[in-house]
Amino acid sequence: MGIDISQTHTIEVGYDEFCGALAAHDLQPLWKMAKWLMPEIPLPTTQPWLWKWDDVLPLAKRAGELIALERGGDRRVLALANPGLKGLPFTSTTLWGALQYLGPHESAPAHHHTPSAIRFVLTGSGVYTTVNGDACDMEPGDLILTPNWNWHDHNNKSDEPMVWFDGLDLPLVTTLESVFFENHPGQLQPVEGHNLSEQGFVGVGLREMGITSPAAHSPLLRYRWAETERTLESLHQVRDRSMISLEFTNPLTGGPAVSTFACEMYRIYPGERNATRRKTGSSVYVVFQGAGRTVINGVLFEWEPGDIFVTPSWASVDHEAFDRADLFAISDRPVLQLLHLYREEELAEHQEIVGTFVPLKGALRTSE
Amino acid sequence: MGIDISQTHTIEVGYDEFCGALAAHDLQPLWKMAKWLMPEIPLPTTQPWLWKWDDVLPLAKRAGELIALERGGDRRVLALANPGLKGLPFTSTTLWGALQYLGPHESAPAHHHTPSAIRFVLTGSGVYTTVNGDACDMEPGDLILTPNWNWHDHNNKSDEPMVWFDGLDLPLVTTLESVFFENHPGQLQPVEGHNLSEQGFVGVGLREMGITSPAAHSPLLRYRWAETERTLESLHQVRDRSMISLEFTNPLTGGPAVSTFACEMYRIYPGERNATRRKTGSSVYVVFQGAGRTVINGVLFEWEPGDIFVTPSWASVDHEAFDRADLFAISDRPVLQLLHLYREEELAEHQEIVGTFVPLKGALRTSE
Amino acid sequence: MGIDISQTHTIEVGYDEFCGALAAHDLQPLWKMAKWLMPEIPLPTTQPWLWKWDDVLPLAKRAGELIALERGGDRRVLALANPGLKGLPFTSTTLWGALQYLGPHESAPAHHHTPSAIRFVLTGSGVYTTVNGDACDMEPGDLILTPNWNWHDHNNKSDEPMVWFDGLDLPLVTTLESVFFENHPGQLQPVEGHNLSEQGFVGVGLREMGITSPAAHSPLLRYRWAETERTLESLHQVRDRSMISLEFTNPLTGGPAVSTFACEMYRIYPGERNATRRKTGSSVYVVFQGAGRTVINGVLFEWEPGDIFVTPSWASVDHEAFDRADLFAISDRPVLQLLHLYREEELAEHQEIVGTFVPLKGALRTSE
Amino acid sequence: MGIDISQTHTIEVGYDEFCGALAAHDLQPLWKMAKWLMPEIPLPTTQPWLWKWDDVLPLAKRAGELIALERGGDRRVLALANPGLKGLPFTSTTLWGALQYLGPHESAPAHHHTPSAIRFVLTGSGVYTTVNGDACDMEPGDLILTPNWNWHDHNNKSDEPMVWFDGLDLPLVTTLESVFFENHPGQLQPVEGHNLSEQGFVGVGLREMGITSPAAHSPLLRYRWAETERTLESLHQVRDRSMISLEFTNPLTGGPAVSTFACEMYRIYPGERNATRRKTGSSVYVVFQGAGRTVINGVLFEWEPGDIFVTPSWASVDHEAFDRADLFAISDRPVLQLLHLYREEELAEHQEIVGTFVPLKGALRTSE
Repeated sequence: MGIDISQTHTIEVGYDEFCGALAAHDLQPLWKMAKWLMPEIPLPTTQPWLWKWDDVLPLAKRAGELIALERGGDRRVLALANPGLKGLPFTSTTLWGALQYLGPHESAPAHHHTPSAIRFVLTGSGVYTTVNGDACDMEPGDLILTPNWNWHDHNNKSDEPMVWFDGLDLPLVTTLESVFFENHPGQLQPVEGHNLSEQGFVGVGLREMGITSPAAHSPLLRYRWAETERTLESLHQVRDRSMISLEFTNPLTGGPAVSTFACEMYRIYPGERNATRRKTGSSVYVVFQGAGRTVINGVLFEWEPGDIFVTPSWASVDHEAFDRADLFAISDRPVLQLLHLYREEELAEHQEIVGTFVPLKGALRTSE
Repeated sequence: MGIDISQTHTIEVGYDEFCGALAAHDLQPLWKMAKWLMPEIPLPTTQPWLWKWDDVLPLAKRAGELIALERGGDRRVLALANPGLKGLPFTSTTLWGALQYLGPHESAPAHHHTPSAIRFVLTGSGVYTTVNGDACDMEPGDLILTPNWNWHDHNNKSDEPMVWFDGLDLPLVTTLESVFFENHPGQLQPVEGHNLSEQGFVGVGLREMGITSPAAHSPLLRYRWAETERTLESLHQVRDRSMISLEFTNPLTGGPAVSTFACEMYRIYPGERNATRRKTGSSVYVVFQGAGRTVINGVLFEWEPGDIFVTPSWASVDHEAFDRADLFAISDRPVLQLLHLYREEELAEHQEIVGTFVPLKGALRTSE
Repeated sequence: MGIDISQTHTIEVGYDEFCGALAAHDLQPLWKMAKWLMPEIPLPTTQPWLWKWDDVLPLAKRAGELIALERGGDRRVLALANPGLKGLPFTSTTLWGALQYLGPHESAPAHHHTPSAIRFVLTGSGVYTTVNGDACDMEPGDLILTPNWNWHDHNNKSDEPMVWFDGLDLPLVTTLESVFFENHPGQLQPVEGHNLSEQGFVGVGLREMGITSPAAHSPLLRYRWAETERTLESLHQVRDRSMISLEFTNPLTGGPAVSTFACEMYRIYPGERNATRRKTGSSVYVVFQGAGRTVINGVLFEWEPGDIFVTPSWASVDHEAFDRADLFAISDRPVLQLLHLYREEELAEHQEIVGTFVPLKGALRTSE
Repeated sequence: MGIDISQTHTIEVGYDEFCGALAAHDLQPLWKMAKWLMPEIPLPTTQPWLWKWDDVLPLAKRAGELIALERGGDRRVLALANPGLKGLPFTSTTLWGALQYLGPHESAPAHHHTPSAIRFVLTGSGVYTTVNGDACDMEPGDLILTPNWNWHDHNNKSDEPMVWFDGLDLPLVTTLESVFFENHPGQLQPVEGHNLSEQGFVGVGLREMGITSPAAHSPLLRYRWAETERTLESLHQVRDRSMISLEFTNPLTGGPAVSTFACEMYRIYPGERNATRRKTGSSVYVVFQGAGRTVINGVLFEWEPGDIFVTPSWASVDHEAFDRADLFAISDRPVLQLLHLYREEELAEHQEIVGTFVPLKGALRTSE
């Protein structure tokens, strides 16, 4: 049984020549790189990073003037490119974060793709995203889902621009070599009604009988800020905590709203630095309201509304708000949990602060 | 509600300067790369590739002479490095394939790591891998699991070397930034017994009452070739097909043996080219017995025992055996299925053959 | 292999004597009762039945005068005893329906039991049911859960009596021989707060991170009528249907609020007889508002607020409202679905009406 | 909101008249029966009972002479009727146990029904049960599944009778009012092959790719005694226990072979009385080989091959073998587990033995 190797001879070469022969045959020796491939704790290539709203917004506005929204030049999107990822337009190895700018009376044409996207609205009003015919109105703080292979287009009917945060699993789906994309036959989808998905999910735990839904994502496509705010406020009343943490879920299953990443909201109250925690997987945080600072692996990142920052896997993280702050976040936690790779822990003490983030292009510098 | 942007001005720059400003702020414009980021069908970086046993085995033997197995220089492993992956020692974007060579009377010391590994034995006898104290004997055709965070060491008690195929989810777990690694306090684990896990799983569908098991992987750690062979033979009797396909599963759940990739066995009968199929996700095939050829995206790959080849996502693939052939394979299908990204289809006709693979370093050439 | 029966002789008896011998040995011959044991369609012992509020309420009030609520004489409950069930105090073979009357300033002492109970409030105000320390206020139309083995007591702090519907799985749990009961060490539980469970579940699909819950039932213990009403109204706007059907679910899983029976709400609009349907399993309907009639296996049952009726398994059922009506219901559907015994179908035509229910004790009579 | 009861008056009756009024309106007062309805621990109506092979077999043989197997007089089955169940032909409140006798060259015609059945062969050879065209050969110790709504007929091609144990969920499905039954259009089904289901499940954990299966039951329809025996023997080697316990499961899911009850096998070694345990739910035990005794709630039940006994819910149970004994059993445990009603515990000490079972008709007597 098995392959007979008794007749195979070794090749008579010295170590250097041997290494060359390996490379010539598309082989690599594990023993030279085991410590890098199998580190004791994760060695992320994702760098902790922060993008300032004050830097990005003027560029987004300028993009609104320079770049026409039309088929072929789709989507006026500025991707938050993590300097650790070698020029890839990805915010972490699994997550894509971006700002999208839609000018007054503009529409972004309809398409669908296997990467799932969410939109978290930062500013503007009077815009809707049509998802399979359901026109989801977008107001600040709203979360809109455009999941895997759902048709979607964006329409600004107002006189003001809108800026929202785009969160996608694009880096992960790219690694999984599973990106499919298709333009809609029409420039825009016909609208069957507004906020239809919301009308089927009004009271918590009340489900229309006979309803069926794709297992892959929530049938509720719009999570209105007013509901998020009410929930945060209620939890604040009953929990004696300096931070309230919410997850946006599929009301039919209790699972995550989209299957490839979590959507979360954190309300942080001033007066206290949260406990330092670390977890596997990366998160991208979007500051919706309030100001504060986050320590990531000992480096201070100060933030204000509209700022966006990313935490790599197993980074030590703690937050502190100067005034009550609301942070929206996406995270690859659901994927890690499905694959039994999720770990998290709280450190016994706050991590030490060793410097402050200075966002110089391509390198993380800390003040001394 | 929302962030006030009425006071923010655009920046007065031309297009080139604008692009420079984006780069300076770690931003990338989606509209310049949308077609590459969101292609109509997957654009894998994984290249179809094949490693010849006749090339690799002599190098593995030479490695056995040159490289000592000792702590710090762990594991005499030759990784199959896909030329499409920019120098990374990965066989596809999600899968690691490698050949491991363990000389007579050698032992590879005990450790554990979050990436899950399987071993598929190609040649040799008298070796066992100890997994959490259970010494799993290794014979040709056997599949041995060393899943996520299970202690394992390899021990060759014979006078002959053993060569096996290592399959890991290391590229995926690296992307997920979740690799943890730890050496065992002892050089080798104490052995509690041999093939203990097999003794609890003897008859199909017969389960010891009260047994509990980690959800993450099969409690059965050794899948003996004799059982695989018996199953293939039995299915051949009842199915009128030119290819029999098996999956190695967790007997307690019916799910995959390890949670991050599938382990599969294909028995292909001569006389017929199988239907051309494509699926999302990559597979690494290991030829255990028999010879034949596989067409991948129109290119012919001929194979013999010990050869290993990889198929990228959405590649058109069909197999043909010259004599009865057994191919072991690993695939990232379970991950894609969990994330609702799995697609597969059979083409109406065989794909056209446009050339033959010639394995020149770093590039795929086809004969004309 | 097997038992040797070659030495066993038959017994030389005639047929009658043979039958007697069977009975003497606690054996019964299948062939004599196969058609009854294995009918072509279900032969329910549960009879379609209706209890009139105008009959029951005065008796409930009288019970309030005659029966003291104290340990040992627990719960002033009138069970709806189906005449088909041979004197058992059960409404169907799986479901218990009852009216409970709690007088002004009375309390029903704390206990817990493995049967799960729900309370649907028909009239009164100012009462709360404490469930594991959480005082759930009860208002008309509210649904309160007191699931499997959760401590509960009822407290009327008002000057008016309250009457509610009790729904339990007691008949099923009795058949499963799994009833456990225990009195609380104190007469009443200490109250930690009011409506605490509601405060964690405010917005649909918004879930506190890190929350854990018993799998057996919903962590939300009170489903407030205002929310049910809002949901019914919203669904009415988007569905062009004469009946809106809701299920009360566990927001963490999407499963039923308690695991052994469904809690449902039907809003029926006047002007139309609904399609005739049948399903396996029984349902108990409680008229909360409105009047109308239901045809069950050809017999008309007219109902008004407070009336309660039961439909047996596989009965043909259709409803018609005279004015807008709200019916609360419990059903054993979740059990049948778990066990793969659930079937339902819609008849092509309305069933024929052959008579009208006249509630004479112990027998179903129909007018001619 | 709610029903207005302010105008409803109480009825002016005394207690006795009040009770009569309740009965007249199909109402029952909970307070009179609470202790019986809600006991502190289960009060089973199922009685511990034992049927002796030496009593039953001669009657089964005589049935073979007196009762013709033909349509209308289907199945020569002697049901084990528990004396506690008021004349119902049920062995417990959820389980049906029976002996079925099929004479030489007889066939029992094809039908299907929603109750699931299993057959455990006690004696005979050369019989097969055809399940959806798959002729499952029956040999002593084999377990054959004929699950919910699967067509089945039994065929004795030998010169000897066969006697097997029938296990069904009929009492439970009757309570759930969900029994459907249908005769097959043909007297017998066409046979597509023998033991086809076994041929797809040869090695543990080896699953044909692309196989689909009804979720409700195992796709493996025959569990051959040789495999059960091999598994018992192997477990005996690795476990230092006086009793080995197996469950027959669905190899595709790890769940029970049929969804409504468990099929189990116990091998008990002589020399020791097992620990006394109790659990919710009933079990029916069939002695396949060996002799011994079981204590149920303090009463000794002695058993030999072919004897069958039943244990009620929450009964204290312990076994002792005189020589190595194999007991097959069915149990409603899966239903209780799905409904979160399962409890089990081991007593600190052996229960006291207070008497010996004497099977007098209709009552449990114990010797003194």
